[in-house]
Amino acid sequence: MSTHEKIELPAMLEEQFQELTRGIEEVLPVHEFRKKLLDAHNKKIPLRVKAGFDPTAPDLHLGHTVLIQKLRQFQKYGHHVLFLIGDYTAMIGDPTGKSETRKVLSRAEVEANAKTYKEQVFKILDPQKTEIVFNSHWLNDLKLEDMLHLTGKYTVARMLERDDFSKRYAAGAPISLVEFMYPLMQGYDSVALKSDIELGGTDQKFNLLVGRDLQAAYGQAQQCVMMTPLLVGLDGVKKMSKSLGNYIGIQEAPADIYGKLMSISDELMMLYYTLLSDKSVADVEGIKKSIADGSLHPKQAKADLAREITARFTSTEIATATADEWNKVHNPKDRGLPQDIPEFRYSKGAQLVAIVKEAGLAPSNSEARRMIEQKSIYRVEADGSETVLTDFKLLVNEDFILRAGKRKFVKLKS
Amino acid sequence: MSTHEKIELPAMLEEQFQELTRGIEEVLPVHEFRKKLLDAHNKKIPLRVKAGFDPTAPDLHLGHTVLIQKLRQFQKYGHHVLFLIGDYTAMIGDPTGKSETRKVLSRAEVEANAKTYKEQVFKILDPQKTEIVFNSHWLNDLKLEDMLHLTGKYTVARMLERDDFSKRYAAGAPISLVEFMYPLMQGYDSVALKSDIELGGTDQKFNLLVGRDLQAAYGQAQQCVMMTPLLVGLDGVKKMSKSLGNYIGIQEAPADIYGKLMSISDELMMLYYTLLSDKSVADVEGIKKSIADGSLHPKQAKADLAREITARFTSTEIATATADEWNKVHNPKDRGLPQDIPEFRYSKGAQLVAIVKEAGLAPSNSEARRMIEQKSIYRVEADGSETVLTDFKLLVNEDFILRAGKRKFVKLKS
Repeated sequence: MSTHEKIELPAMLEEQFQELTRGIEEVLPVHEFRKKLLDAHNKKIPLRVKAGFDPTAPDLHLGHTVLIQKLRQFQKYGHHVLFLIGDYTAMIGDPTGKSETRKVLSRAEVEANAKTYKEQVFKILDPQKTEIVFNSHWLNDLKLEDMLHLTGKYTVARMLERDDFSKRYAAGAPISLVEFMYPLMQGYDSVALKSDIELGGTDQKFNLLVGRDLQAAYGQAQQCVMMTPLLVGLDGVKKMSKSLGNYIGIQEAPADIYGKLMSISDELMMLYYTLLSDKSVADVEGIKKSIADGSLHPKQAKADLAREITARFTSTEIATATADEWNKVHNPKDRGLPQDIPEFRYSKGAQLVAIVKEAGLAPSNSEARRMIEQKSIYRVEADGSETVLTDFKLLVNEDFILRAGKRKFVKLKS
Repeated sequence: MSTHEKIELPAMLEEQFQELTRGIEEVLPVHEFRKKLLDAHNKKIPLRVKAGFDPTAPDLHLGHTVLIQKLRQFQKYGHHVLFLIGDYTAMIGDPTGKSETRKVLSRAEVEANAKTYKEQVFKILDPQKTEIVFNSHWLNDLKLEDMLHLTGKYTVARMLERDDFSKRYAAGAPISLVEFMYPLMQGYDSVALKSDIELGGTDQKFNLLVGRDLQAAYGQAQQCVMMTPLLVGLDGVKKMSKSLGNYIGIQEAPADIYGKLMSISDELMMLYYTLLSDKSVADVEGIKKSIADGSLHPKQAKADLAREITARFTSTEIATATADEWNKVHNPKDRGLPQDIPEFRYSKGAQLVAIVKEAGLAPSNSEARRMIEQKSIYRVEADGSETVLTDFKLLVNEDFILRAGKRKFVKLKS
């Protein structure tokens, strides 16, 4: 955080500022944000913190929760969260008729999705301090006249400054005029909600700032914008995403959430502490220091993080049991096979690659082959001894236990 | 007219085509227009001919009537005129808040102006074949969703192709996004009206073509667009406009309409015949030929035109009386002073320039001086003999008749 435009804050608010900006990529403008924290405190009026969400069926992963955690932090300091579901455009679909992927949602689907959202986000957010709002509520009422006033407040040149627009325009790639309407609508949402703060990803910077501009044009106080970083995925390299497979879904089985977190690098662990943990900035610094001076083993720190995150999406009890089970499997001193290994019925003489795939240890034959070639598939004997299996063409003619990676077991039965 | 993409028409329709495209700057596309004439004839369905008019208080001059005459021609061939009063934007005003000149009109003002329009245009148009429509009728009902669909049908790049936009964008001059909405709204008017033809000035080319594009995007048959030229003013050089003073208002006194038309050059007369006369293409060609072979004096041709135009805005009787009066003043063979010369009381010893101005023969002292220097001011004796007065400082000490230009007389009385 750049703090060179500092407004002096009492210690308690300075701490609030530090916690709220922790892990944040950018706050614009910082001095206004500090001023807003001070004013909210002095006037005892909570800040209105807006964040917009896509109304398509949500299946959130940890990447999404970075922003939701930040909202939660605001709530802990008494502020009010406006959880905006952008249903309006979803119900209209793609006016250009070009996008085959943009599905038109019915009101019923939007409501069903909103319910799923609530189930998921209220694992993090405080329902008492969360107002779920739908932008169709005000956008439905806008008439041509309102749109003319709205478009009258922005210039073509400023819109073309948006990075993706300027690139496409320069490249001669078509930009539909309706694409210019979306940032205005998002900005108008801020006008309608009178938001003090808007949170979004760094890719949203332009749109977030449009909200600021429009609030000024409509004679309102301007929101500050706060950009959360993209969470790096389990591979430690690319952003967490479902399509890249490097994610942890918040509705995954606790053993998967815990196990995946235990698999990340030490470096990534510290980043996850900053972006995902409820621990204070001071506590996170303490952990870093303890690891550095050798008083805390990184594996223990990772286990603490994995348990905190698992508990968030399940319960403390489940998280503890999950950790115990994980330790049983992975801890050399009481190594043993997990309880309840699922069975898989195979036909004698089947190829190993086919069994790995069909037993659900790999999503495809090619992935199964890759796993075998990369020595992730083991034959485990009843006494726990293991042999790595490297020939994907191996014909399986006797029953044994298969282990895939660290955590998946299957008992082969002919 | 380019006719290289010719669709064969029966002689009667070919004549209609020639008359309707007479004097027109551009028809797009010509072959579609010919096809429409043919289809309208075969199916006995009149074409829907749209033209848009500004709803501010109209005070039409001959320049405006070029387009209205063209509409009248369509009516003569049985077609249906959609006289569109663009009241919607006038009632909104300028959404950017920057234009001080764009006056917001109330519903009552719009209706009062529409009444004035009718009084004026029904001197030319056939009320039976004229439908007066207001675009607020459909634009009032447009919602954000409709606007998204509308903007989804046009790209930023195409909009920036409009000449004034591209120049301003290149020069870094701001273009408000609302300015992109106006061509879309004008185009949407064509969708709402299902027009077959839209008429407009050459400066409207881009907007007229947007209408074509939008009709296609909304799955309608596309209108042809027809651009009327700007009428050259009385000076024979600049476009006719009120601010340049080179105009003939259609509500002016008949003597002024007639007299101003008699003052134009022979060349301009032929252009006015083409753009303003009800005479057929063949008749106009005949006049041109007769002047060329000496069988018709240009002055007679001009008198015929002046009488036709004067009659259009008054009556045949008034036009004839006006012509007689004009002849009495200007015809050398029965030259004499007009009846009822107004008197002007001057103080003996006043400068000529001041008298010319104060008698209302010139709008300003500098204009009075210019007229004197350019030998437009005469002293007329009771017997009709005249002396040109060239010294603007001349001190006037006796009563006489002043003539300014060809038609204005003042009797000086001390």
